[in-house]
Amino acid sequence: MSRTTIHDIAKELNTSPSTVSKALNDHPSISAATKKLIKETAQNLNYRQNRLASSLRSGRTNIIGILIPSSDIGFFGAVVHGIEKVARANGYNILLFQSNETGEYEVEGVETLLQTSVDGIIASIAKDTPNLDHFYYVKKRKVPLVLFDRTKDELGAPSVVVDDYKGAFMATEHLIQQGYTQIAHISGPQHIKIFNDRLCGYVDALKMNNMEVDEDLIQYGRNSIESGRFSAERLLSRNKGMDAIFAVEDFTALGALQYFKQEGIKMPGEIGMIGFGNESFSPYVTPSLSTIDQQPARMGEEAFTLFLEAMAKKAAGTEETELVTEPKKIILDPVLIVRESSVMTVMA
Amino acid sequence: MSRTTIHDIAKELNTSPSTVSKALNDHPSISAATKKLIKETAQNLNYRQNRLASSLRSGRTNIIGILIPSSDIGFFGAVVHGIEKVARANGYNILLFQSNETGEYEVEGVETLLQTSVDGIIASIAKDTPNLDHFYYVKKRKVPLVLFDRTKDELGAPSVVVDDYKGAFMATEHLIQQGYTQIAHISGPQHIKIFNDRLCGYVDALKMNNMEVDEDLIQYGRNSIESGRFSAERLLSRNKGMDAIFAVEDFTALGALQYFKQEGIKMPGEIGMIGFGNESFSPYVTPSLSTIDQQPARMGEEAFTLFLEAMAKKAAGTEETELVTEPKKIILDPVLIVRESSVMTVMA
Repeated sequence: MSRTTIHDIAKELNTSPSTVSKALNDHPSISAATKKLIKETAQNLNYRQNRLASSLRSGRTNIIGILIPSSDIGFFGAVVHGIEKVARANGYNILLFQSNETGEYEVEGVETLLQTSVDGIIASIAKDTPNLDHFYYVKKRKVPLVLFDRTKDELGAPSVVVDDYKGAFMATEHLIQQGYTQIAHISGPQHIKIFNDRLCGYVDALKMNNMEVDEDLIQYGRNSIESGRFSAERLLSRNKGMDAIFAVEDFTALGALQYFKQEGIKMPGEIGMIGFGNESFSPYVTPSLSTIDQQPARMGEEAFTLFLEAMAKKAAGTEETELVTEPKKIILDPVLIVRESSVMTVMA
Repeated sequence: MSRTTIHDIAKELNTSPSTVSKALNDHPSISAATKKLIKETAQNLNYRQNRLASSLRSGRTNIIGILIPSSDIGFFGAVVHGIEKVARANGYNILLFQSNETGEYEVEGVETLLQTSVDGIIASIAKDTPNLDHFYYVKKRKVPLVLFDRTKDELGAPSVVVDDYKGAFMATEHLIQQGYTQIAHISGPQHIKIFNDRLCGYVDALKMNNMEVDEDLIQYGRNSIESGRFSAERLLSRNKGMDAIFAVEDFTALGALQYFKQEGIKMPGEIGMIGFGNESFSPYVTPSLSTIDQQPARMGEEAFTLFLEAMAKKAAGTEETELVTEPKKIILDPVLIVRESSVMTVMA
């Protein structure tokens, strides 16, 4: 590839290559006006920095590692797009590693990302991670760590989450407002905070509306289509007059929906349904699935902003203050998405 | 983290740390039996090699970079899982980069992966890549390159694809066998070989069955839900008595399906539909979508095997022979998946 070099830019502006190089690397000895001119000229000449050389100089790679449980879950893909958008605008590239929900792969992911000298790691914790040693190791290595969605407060890392309790409360209250009275909940693994938060939101919404909380209408699942089918079958078999389900996430809701369809049960007439997560398939199933949106694109953008702040702290040598001050935690509002599965009178 | 070291293994076996180290790094001076014993002991003691140190010794990172157009497309996610499965079994970790279907990001992806010193790159080319310079650069750097699904023969890289022509032929013939007579096709961007192959398969299936090829029943789309909706509307507006559509991929089929539902057109009775790609949503839409499965998990496994072969060639210094011999091309058979959308009598 024949490329524009800093010599071409220097020639164009009648200045020295070293001035160009300093300007492109934001050296303090160059004025803001000169930097602007040189950067614009570089852009006009379609100049791309030799990243490796640049990284050797700066000690940075301008790469962020993102560790997600699974790219099969549309929510994580949408967060990644949110991160990408702002990361690229700030000159960062991102590399993805998926843990496939296991602690073993997550440990390998952390090692792989550290090995490739990423400037920082943005992570969401796998369902089956038995301990957090690998994340403590990231912190020990002083590599900025930001958590999103599935976080652990004890890691003391900045994080961005959606208000899961509130989302569950909204979902349950929506079913109540639609006239459903025997509302069941299919929950997820309780050692993960967000799933416990959703359970609490469900319970409190019932209580606040003076409705009984019936243990027989709560089923603990494993966040999968299969688990949703199985849980729906179990709930129905208890003959409690269940007329609606709030499912902990959309894959679980989809499994329940499939089971009811197979059994000839009409939705939303006989049983109403709402999920959580606004997965990509949710608008396209029949009936289309009501759900809670977690603003994943914004979550990604906020996570990247937290990473930039952590980088700035690291550069200023002030990251130790994290030990005395609480790390920043951004809590996004959930958004109720009403579709056919939860509305008694279905609109066209 | 308190970790097992080579000293622990040496103590356990009453041998020297240097013998352990040599055995774990497959040094030729150590016998196969000793290597086996040491590796088993290492595993029993839950030993994990310090990858970075190991990589500095071997000149390898044991990381493969995977470049995909988008992780939002379930097909690519499934290929990645196929690669992962065999990669992990062979001691490799993988890092993902998504090009979001643009050439610009794809170039950045190649640079980022080369910068992190991956041992090789397994790639599927973005829809909007204007040229292949960045892939030629990978070859020039002698980094093994394997292509899958969206490939370019002129790159001279080993590749694995599905027989797209055959898949399209099967899809169209299936509609003919179901009794449909005015079969339309929504195609994709024609500069990408696989979409042109699918068009040819459609045309030839009609011809082989003595059916007329009507240009008015062919619509060129952009492989998206929106494009599918628009194309379905255009095809219907031509009043050609269209009674079935073979869509170039499942997102396009989904858009068409949504449009017909909205217009109150019955599927598969009034219009039959088959897609291509077996996306994750396809079994769950109503009617469930018939499609062509591309064996993505196997595609991933084969791609990794081609990468290992390229690594072996590189180690033996015989990769130049690629210039005189044709690079290996593995062609997988497509699999017809019949669901509700294409079967006149829908089964329960």
